[in-house]
Amino acid sequence: MKMIHIILFFVGLLSSCIPNVTSVNNDFCVADLSLPKTRLGYQCKSEKDVTVDDFVFSGYVAGNATKPFNTGTTFVNVDRLPGLNGLGIATLRGDIGINGTVPLHSHPDATELVIIVEGQVNVGFITPTKVFLKDSKPGDVIAIPKGQLHFLVNTGAGKAIFFAAFSSSDPSTHVLDLVLFGNDLSTSILSKTTLLDVAQIQKLKAAFGGKN
Amino acid sequence: MKMIHIILFFVGLLSSCIPNVTSVNNDFCVADLSLPKTRLGYQCKSEKDVTVDDFVFSGYVAGNATKPFNTGTTFVNVDRLPGLNGLGIATLRGDIGINGTVPLHSHPDATELVIIVEGQVNVGFITPTKVFLKDSKPGDVIAIPKGQLHFLVNTGAGKAIFFAAFSSSDPSTHVLDLVLFGNDLSTSILSKTTLLDVAQIQKLKAAFGGKN
Amino acid sequence: MKMIHIILFFVGLLSSCIPNVTSVNNDFCVADLSLPKTRLGYQCKSEKDVTVDDFVFSGYVAGNATKPFNTGTTFVNVDRLPGLNGLGIATLRGDIGINGTVPLHSHPDATELVIIVEGQVNVGFITPTKVFLKDSKPGDVIAIPKGQLHFLVNTGAGKAIFFAAFSSSDPSTHVLDLVLFGNDLSTSILSKTTLLDVAQIQKLKAAFGGKN
Amino acid sequence: MKMIHIILFFVGLLSSCIPNVTSVNNDFCVADLSLPKTRLGYQCKSEKDVTVDDFVFSGYVAGNATKPFNTGTTFVNVDRLPGLNGLGIATLRGDIGINGTVPLHSHPDATELVIIVEGQVNVGFITPTKVFLKDSKPGDVIAIPKGQLHFLVNTGAGKAIFFAAFSSSDPSTHVLDLVLFGNDLSTSILSKTTLLDVAQIQKLKAAFGGKN
Amino acid sequence: MKMIHIILFFVGLLSSCIPNVTSVNNDFCVADLSLPKTRLGYQCKSEKDVTVDDFVFSGYVAGNATKPFNTGTTFVNVDRLPGLNGLGIATLRGDIGINGTVPLHSHPDATELVIIVEGQVNVGFITPTKVFLKDSKPGDVIAIPKGQLHFLVNTGAGKAIFFAAFSSSDPSTHVLDLVLFGNDLSTSILSKTTLLDVAQIQKLKAAFGGKN
Amino acid sequence: MKMIHIILFFVGLLSSCIPNVTSVNNDFCVADLSLPKTRLGYQCKSEKDVTVDDFVFSGYVAGNATKPFNTGTTFVNVDRLPGLNGLGIATLRGDIGINGTVPLHSHPDATELVIIVEGQVNVGFITPTKVFLKDSKPGDVIAIPKGQLHFLVNTGAGKAIFFAAFSSSDPSTHVLDLVLFGNDLSTSILSKTTLLDVAQIQKLKAAFGGKN
Repeated sequence: MKMIHIILFFVGLLSSCIPNVTSVNNDFCVADLSLPKTRLGYQCKSEKDVTVDDFVFSGYVAGNATKPFNTGTTFVNVDRLPGLNGLGIATLRGDIGINGTVPLHSHPDATELVIIVEGQVNVGFITPTKVFLKDSKPGDVIAIPKGQLHFLVNTGAGKAIFFAAFSSSDPSTHVLDLVLFGNDLSTSILSKTTLLDVAQIQKLKAAFGGKN
Repeated sequence: MKMIHIILFFVGLLSSCIPNVTSVNNDFCVADLSLPKTRLGYQCKSEKDVTVDDFVFSGYVAGNATKPFNTGTTFVNVDRLPGLNGLGIATLRGDIGINGTVPLHSHPDATELVIIVEGQVNVGFITPTKVFLKDSKPGDVIAIPKGQLHFLVNTGAGKAIFFAAFSSSDPSTHVLDLVLFGNDLSTSILSKTTLLDVAQIQKLKAAFGGKN
Repeated sequence: MKMIHIILFFVGLLSSCIPNVTSVNNDFCVADLSLPKTRLGYQCKSEKDVTVDDFVFSGYVAGNATKPFNTGTTFVNVDRLPGLNGLGIATLRGDIGINGTVPLHSHPDATELVIIVEGQVNVGFITPTKVFLKDSKPGDVIAIPKGQLHFLVNTGAGKAIFFAAFSSSDPSTHVLDLVLFGNDLSTSILSKTTLLDVAQIQKLKAAFGGKN
Repeated sequence: MKMIHIILFFVGLLSSCIPNVTSVNNDFCVADLSLPKTRLGYQCKSEKDVTVDDFVFSGYVAGNATKPFNTGTTFVNVDRLPGLNGLGIATLRGDIGINGTVPLHSHPDATELVIIVEGQVNVGFITPTKVFLKDSKPGDVIAIPKGQLHFLVNTGAGKAIFFAAFSSSDPSTHVLDLVLFGNDLSTSILSKTTLLDVAQIQKLKAAFGGKN
Repeated sequence: MKMIHIILFFVGLLSSCIPNVTSVNNDFCVADLSLPKTRLGYQCKSEKDVTVDDFVFSGYVAGNATKPFNTGTTFVNVDRLPGLNGLGIATLRGDIGINGTVPLHSHPDATELVIIVEGQVNVGFITPTKVFLKDSKPGDVIAIPKGQLHFLVNTGAGKAIFFAAFSSSDPSTHVLDLVLFGNDLSTSILSKTTLLDVAQIQKLKAAFGGKN
Repeated sequence: MKMIHIILFFVGLLSSCIPNVTSVNNDFCVADLSLPKTRLGYQCKSEKDVTVDDFVFSGYVAGNATKPFNTGTTFVNVDRLPGLNGLGIATLRGDIGINGTVPLHSHPDATELVIIVEGQVNVGFITPTKVFLKDSKPGDVIAIPKGQLHFLVNTGAGKAIFFAAFSSSDPSTHVLDLVLFGNDLSTSILSKTTLLDVAQIQKLKAAFGGKN
């Protein structure tokens, strides 16, 4: 039993002999972050440049809690873990301070699975017809279907920690306040299309950086 | 050249001889609205029950304009046009009265193509980082990418009419005011996770039917 | 409540800090028409170059009606509305002159929704086992399942107008006459594989530009 | 090392303990041909009823060659091999007699790979802009992209045999002659939308069973 | 501004009036575990029967560590959290005892993201051409691309804990030892197709419950 | 009826007039093997460079049978038949010598359809709970669901030939012996995570080229 024969045997199964083929296998497609994206993720790094570091992210610790919501987040998507490219999964660690919240937001392109690690958290999502609310504690896992507005409120006496997993390697996050009050959409149009009072809009635009 | 031979010839290509196969072809799958749905649409009606009426909707006319937004809509999705089942397309006609709007809303699972048919309309959508706004008139077609909050405002002197096409046969619609103010999510939680004032929330809950 | 804190808060949720990442968000992927296509559409334009014009097409008016079918069309796909890239929707305006038709054709990769806007039109599609035919008028919406040969015939006294929506941002159109008679496939092979008479083929090749 | 421990270990990984779950694993979904279809295939047979026979078809031999095209086919799709359900593959054996052809047809939902096993065959497909033609012999494999009209012509002195593989477990076949001339679409409409002569249509309707 | 008008307004956008439509929205599709599965998950529970409990799993705690690998697992998939149906995500908590391992296995249909919560763990996966290995500790996140054989080895002095997220709501798990040695595939065939020694196979069949 | 008019007519339907659009149609996407891959295949060759040769592979003959398994294979995937790019199909010819086998392996991303052409072959696949085995002969077609470990054993007196079709244009092949014993994963870790004896591992590493 000689190795050279074995290797010859697998030539047909494993690879092509055509000389000028780009060297990329088909078990994964590590993102080449320097090339243009496609609708379905990044182009693949050449296989010879792939290392184990492309599959590891090492700073999954508490993010800095900041005002006004008093929550810190650490987000691990394809940009930080290029081996995830096109593989349909990402994760986030959230640390919610006392009285803190994760404000109302949605991920249009990803379902979220929330794992409560520490503390006591009120988790909720809203469909067009109903509210789903759960007072959660460590040991609870809560599913937030893709595209639904949702939030977390720290209802305990101390800090709360959760891990979230997303069904996309590059989920988009739409924080309602930022989308409404953090840009230059005119107060007049916003008021007409939401019926929010002009004064309310102006107050929140001041807080979230919006203009007009 | 005899017909019987031709028919025999195509037995192999066109159909199976197994007697107890449910009679459904694979060129379409007309929704059987009486059976449970799946994640990807309805189960298929038996082919012998399919008629041309399954592929036609005949009331695509102006809907009644109602308060407070003064817009009427006529929506044609798989429930009204069962032949669309699983085919990734639906349509809506909107008639916006003078000073009317289509309020801020999103379709988490569908891109929308807006075709302006009559009048003058300000169409806009908001991404987390930018606002895209277009003063539109007949002859304009505007794309609203999947999941983005968007609106239309009638800016003309008369009525406005648009047709919308959606990249889903069963798009979901999240009208922001209804999702925020039309359910029983407590004012306290809503205020904490949006920073909207309690008085503002109570005012709009009164308008949109919300409680708590 | 200071803005700088709010902005820091969202760094984790909204964006990556890695410096050399191509600047493209994940809410849309506007086509960069100058780069090679992939099986699923174009590569994305850099976000800083995206403007509202990428989401608007402004010439959705009657196309010139031409012989022999006496129909004009205006087609809006990703090449003319780059914001549609990968979003699964496109549209076409058709103006059918008196006695005109849209000739028999299919879209292998797209379902079509036909909205009758003006006039009287006989719309039909053919599956391998059945014909579905509808005498249509304004207010009718007709679904043509993906891949089926279909046609429209103006049956009214005047011009007819329809809007079509497609479940692809880049639908392919196979006009039967062009595919059969507009290329250099030899008359002999075409006759053998369709049983059309040689004289018939030669007559239509002359009309549609075919050779051999 | 005791087996009972090993089995307990894998309970978490392999299965759920919830008593009323339908017993179907997720490595395959053998078609239950007696239940309604969905857009993406049949519902799954209960796992306890699955046997190796669900994954085997045993009559992959020459079909009877019939007039007028002198070709026999044996088609293996999900209806004959229920284990293929939803797995995106099917196959067909074609035996083309002397001077025989596989007439012009398309599979809107499947790419076809043609493997020439015996004889000499002219294989071609037609896109809207070009004809691709290959004089093929055993050892040749030809790709027919999804949705393109294609044909095979036996150009050798003897019989020809090919195997075809399809990228769908339930491909649809549209034989052009049958779709045009095998139904009750009126000769008048067909002539208007194809410019085929009325006499030609009537001749082929007589051959293929069409009416009107 | 009267509520009744508002409700009338949204009839067009939100729902259909057709009386006999099964009451299921399109924001989620909670699994009806009592109905047959499809290739893409369970059929949907009627919306009126859906409660918040369908979106919550409450026993995400350490599973019992068992021999021979000394690891306990708690798996949360669609069978235990029916709200996940079709949403492409699931999770597992693993507790690896001292000197314990998660044995070599693969998930053919799911990428796995491993989050190290406690202890020190050697995580690895093997492609056909390379091994990727990482000595991991809390704060590390490791991506295991879909379909690759992988393992975890507790290399620390104490217990190790990890959370895993999967890109499927119903991932399949193929533990190599069980697939090779836990069934009735004959020792002779297994030896011929793996070159494993007969004695080795018999020893492991005894451990893992295999026969023949 | 003049040709020039006909051509003008189809401009709207068939093509875009925008000058700087890359010339690629949307009926196929022939792989440009010199450009970086994406998760879903290669980028498209410019249409003007596409010829019929991109759709034909001409060496589908017996591969050289090699030790230790005595099987030769000829594999036709997108790298050898660039017209297959993104079309979800590939094929392989296997020639199994007397007493030869195709060793235990899996394709994580492709279902395989095995067509027995000559000889007598024992075909089997293993799910986590069951073995499916078939003594096969010419005329048999066997389905191997995506991701399952499978094998073929020549059980006849002579050579055996089979054709395999795969539901991917670029299937990955994981030969178990190569994945376990052909790399530098340490014997110690491999033994701990499989319970294979150290001596057994060392013996097979020597045969398959593994180290450590």
